[in-house]
Amino acid sequence: MLNVRILRCRSALIRECMAEFLGTFTLLLFGCSAAAQVKTSNEKNGQFLSVNMAFSVGVMSAMYLTKGISGAHLNPAVSLSFCILGKVKWGRLLPYSFFQVLGAYMASAMVYLVYYDAIMEYSGGELTVYGQNETASIFATYPKEFVTVGRSFLDQVVGTGLLLLCILCLDEKRNTPAPPDLIPPIVAVIVLGISMSLSANCGGAINPARDLGPRLFTLTAGWGTEVFTCYNYWFWVPIVAPLLGGVLGSFIYLIFIHWQLPDEEPPENLLTFSSICDKTKHVNIITEKGNEVKTAQF
Amino acid sequence: MLNVRILRCRSALIRECMAEFLGTFTLLLFGCSAAAQVKTSNEKNGQFLSVNMAFSVGVMSAMYLTKGISGAHLNPAVSLSFCILGKVKWGRLLPYSFFQVLGAYMASAMVYLVYYDAIMEYSGGELTVYGQNETASIFATYPKEFVTVGRSFLDQVVGTGLLLLCILCLDEKRNTPAPPDLIPPIVAVIVLGISMSLSANCGGAINPARDLGPRLFTLTAGWGTEVFTCYNYWFWVPIVAPLLGGVLGSFIYLIFIHWQLPDEEPPENLLTFSSICDKTKHVNIITEKGNEVKTAQF
Amino acid sequence: MLNVRILRCRSALIRECMAEFLGTFTLLLFGCSAAAQVKTSNEKNGQFLSVNMAFSVGVMSAMYLTKGISGAHLNPAVSLSFCILGKVKWGRLLPYSFFQVLGAYMASAMVYLVYYDAIMEYSGGELTVYGQNETASIFATYPKEFVTVGRSFLDQVVGTGLLLLCILCLDEKRNTPAPPDLIPPIVAVIVLGISMSLSANCGGAINPARDLGPRLFTLTAGWGTEVFTCYNYWFWVPIVAPLLGGVLGSFIYLIFIHWQLPDEEPPENLLTFSSICDKTKHVNIITEKGNEVKTAQF
Amino acid sequence: MLNVRILRCRSALIRECMAEFLGTFTLLLFGCSAAAQVKTSNEKNGQFLSVNMAFSVGVMSAMYLTKGISGAHLNPAVSLSFCILGKVKWGRLLPYSFFQVLGAYMASAMVYLVYYDAIMEYSGGELTVYGQNETASIFATYPKEFVTVGRSFLDQVVGTGLLLLCILCLDEKRNTPAPPDLIPPIVAVIVLGISMSLSANCGGAINPARDLGPRLFTLTAGWGTEVFTCYNYWFWVPIVAPLLGGVLGSFIYLIFIHWQLPDEEPPENLLTFSSICDKTKHVNIITEKGNEVKTAQF
Repeated sequence: MLNVRILRCRSALIRECMAEFLGTFTLLLFGCSAAAQVKTSNEKNGQFLSVNMAFSVGVMSAMYLTKGISGAHLNPAVSLSFCILGKVKWGRLLPYSFFQVLGAYMASAMVYLVYYDAIMEYSGGELTVYGQNETASIFATYPKEFVTVGRSFLDQVVGTGLLLLCILCLDEKRNTPAPPDLIPPIVAVIVLGISMSLSANCGGAINPARDLGPRLFTLTAGWGTEVFTCYNYWFWVPIVAPLLGGVLGSFIYLIFIHWQLPDEEPPENLLTFSSICDKTKHVNIITEKGNEVKTAQF
Repeated sequence: MLNVRILRCRSALIRECMAEFLGTFTLLLFGCSAAAQVKTSNEKNGQFLSVNMAFSVGVMSAMYLTKGISGAHLNPAVSLSFCILGKVKWGRLLPYSFFQVLGAYMASAMVYLVYYDAIMEYSGGELTVYGQNETASIFATYPKEFVTVGRSFLDQVVGTGLLLLCILCLDEKRNTPAPPDLIPPIVAVIVLGISMSLSANCGGAINPARDLGPRLFTLTAGWGTEVFTCYNYWFWVPIVAPLLGGVLGSFIYLIFIHWQLPDEEPPENLLTFSSICDKTKHVNIITEKGNEVKTAQF
Repeated sequence: MLNVRILRCRSALIRECMAEFLGTFTLLLFGCSAAAQVKTSNEKNGQFLSVNMAFSVGVMSAMYLTKGISGAHLNPAVSLSFCILGKVKWGRLLPYSFFQVLGAYMASAMVYLVYYDAIMEYSGGELTVYGQNETASIFATYPKEFVTVGRSFLDQVVGTGLLLLCILCLDEKRNTPAPPDLIPPIVAVIVLGISMSLSANCGGAINPARDLGPRLFTLTAGWGTEVFTCYNYWFWVPIVAPLLGGVLGSFIYLIFIHWQLPDEEPPENLLTFSSICDKTKHVNIITEKGNEVKTAQF
Repeated sequence: MLNVRILRCRSALIRECMAEFLGTFTLLLFGCSAAAQVKTSNEKNGQFLSVNMAFSVGVMSAMYLTKGISGAHLNPAVSLSFCILGKVKWGRLLPYSFFQVLGAYMASAMVYLVYYDAIMEYSGGELTVYGQNETASIFATYPKEFVTVGRSFLDQVVGTGLLLLCILCLDEKRNTPAPPDLIPPIVAVIVLGISMSLSANCGGAINPARDLGPRLFTLTAGWGTEVFTCYNYWFWVPIVAPLLGGVLGSFIYLIFIHWQLPDEEPPENLLTFSSICDKTKHVNIITEKGNEVKTAQF
């Protein structure tokens, strides 16, 4: 397809950051557009569930787009956990996170452009954070009045922990791995589950980039500094808590599952030819004597 | 199954156009029937979400029906983008588009026949484009009152761009491709996501055929010329904008993803025996020395 | 698992009929229970969509249960079409249909037992076909007042035709087949789509057994002869129309798709090792010279 | 990933119990959080359907987490049925069940911590089992007023029976098995179907651990003994009925399906290379003479 190899970036880091940027952009474009569609139509063109579902479709699409290039973190909490687990180099953490936030910021801008008329119609021209016609929650997340800071912090820790706990097992050959080419929709379903069960207290960001990017946009787009100052400077919670939660969830996975798994081959009913190919670069035909592996080369 | 090979069309073009016709017919039959069911039952037999889902099921079914024959474009914007990307011959563009519109027209006629009583009951016998009992939106798409032409144009550009961006990566071996035999449901989910997030402004056609075919039908079926003249001749937007958007989305995909992908084999965890079969017509067993490929022939 | 091979029926026909019985029983148990749950709870424990979804889950479960034994028709209209297409022996048609109806009848009885209290509470003890508190529609399907007989007949023809059109292509190797082991969920999604788009006029039975079995049960369980006499003996429509529709849909598939498919191998991107295994009982390695096939035997 | 093999438990039983604990914890964390989110937000942040879906996502995630270690029963009724079917050693039944209940208890505690503010806000500080502002049903299940004990017992027997009937066939090679690596989402869909169709009478626990664990938590957390005494000590029903139902469903599966299946190879259209690998530890190429199998070894 119009192969202009010349346009390929030399630097792997830049290529990966471009991917993280586009991936997070896609994720937020799906999600925040749905939030705008549901809110500005007073739930006539969708409902709370369809916002959850749109974010979930965004996760799937963004992962298929970028998994082959950057691993499709789309979330600084995921990047941090992967660094700690040794799956990703520490040098990637900051650049990835920056471009994830940038992608989220640009997506918010796009959503604002597309839904400008609707937002003006709905809000009566006043871009506010509080009140009946508030439109800030289309972009960033905000806590319910009655939720304490500690509670919302716990909420984000648990939500992000659950995310990491559930996705880390998906590609573990010694366990019951998901099909490698269907991990994106499966992760999307997990994210859908979390947003259906842990988004009532404070919007279920479970992703610092997903929250900070749109918040920065609303700051620059006319919602004013209130987006940061409101609820007693609450904005730091969906930034810090997910980072902590992701790491905690990863360790719970290691302790309860990963370290408990056997060393040998996966259970028979999972041993497929392709999965053999995966592990070593030969075609291995396992003989009766379980472990010992003979190799065919042509 | 009753093999009457004599009935096979000699011309590949005709066979493909028949497939595009039937595919778009199926897509619209699912989608517009659902729109009629929800509207005429005043949301008792469904809701906005179920219309989105029905269109999505239509996409999946139409793709399984026709992908092996015509590639299942079902959308002139997709055909145009594929021509520009060199995936399809330019000679296909116009015939495909014509039969896509024709399929959409025939599907609308079928929906009208099936839901004639319900439409009469709901509209009180008056087929109108405006007002409480309007039924035109069962077939074609119309903008909200407060949405400017430029806004709805942008909306359709973004929606169709997002579509192409998300589907072009699905069969890219060097990235993380989706299972070839599950691409239809995955594309269906992407379409569902777009209709949940970008259909509030002007109905989310993202497909000139999906909009023009039904609009032409309503013109001929008694809704009058208003279906074209209303909202200051707005009808051109869902025809032109998706064509532009599709191309833009394709280029964003090329720039951010396609041109950035490595030349060599896909990442290990995707290297399956079948996928090796796909690329060359031999069985290639990749040896330790990554790139170099030896071939077994019998 | 407790292998008592002695209990295996000698006759293949009886084994298959047992499977069709259990499959249709499972399908209706999911579907009618959901209908009872939604209606008797006044939509507090579900909504119209969840009834559609429950029928769809029933299709998937019933297919996994019985596909290996009887082919999982679960529907006389499917059995008839398959007989005409030569996929099933004509001798199967009547026995299959009888046990499908019987399974639907028994499932209705089970649903009645489970929801007896709720049905009594909701209906005030009066089992009626008409009126606010009617409960007959939990089991069989009934048309809307304003729908003519001809219209509902067309509705059922189109719905069942769409079903056959969409499922016949799923296992066609020369087209883009669905994964053989995922056909049940894919058929379930197609059924979901049809029930979201073609069930407003007269309940979307698209299955004579699904309608006649429950109707016979309500006749015997106290709803009286009205279940057959109501709407001027309308009950014959969901029996006859689906049979006709299924055959029509099958022929549309043959004409537009099946007869138009190439004779040679499926398109490259679908050529997987396993699918080669499927067609012939050898391992065929296709060489550069496309068609000619050489075979490796050990 | 931080491989500290030293932390691996020597005892397989303890490893499996840890897995059952974490799996049931995950299942309930998804499900009860969703119940809390929907109830305390007065359905503003979700609906009945999203609670069903969250439990379903919980099933999928918990199965991917633990299937490779303990088989992912997550339910004493499943453990009991598997013991009777000889799939699991009897010695596992009690330890598994205990840790399943413990996991459910801990998950309820976590949900209570996360939603404490919301529960207080909703209930006005009074933790009750009856009345408008009752919050006990966020955790355990309770019957509707008009449902008799016998009815709710039957309801749980049927629901759990349906569960076992539908999941036992999924990995049967002689039938039409589901893809081994996609069984978790398919089981999740079956659970979704059951909770959409059989949860109106008494909450559709179909799992003694899912019900007893949260009930014990509410007892200790301030809802008082009423959680056990209410509805005339109804709590025993979701404990006993599922155990019975699971066994009944298993036997219906054996009688109608399992014992009726052929001895020989699965139907052609399911014979894939990988599945051949599964059965024997050689690469078997089946020759024209159906049964006889020759083996290639390198």
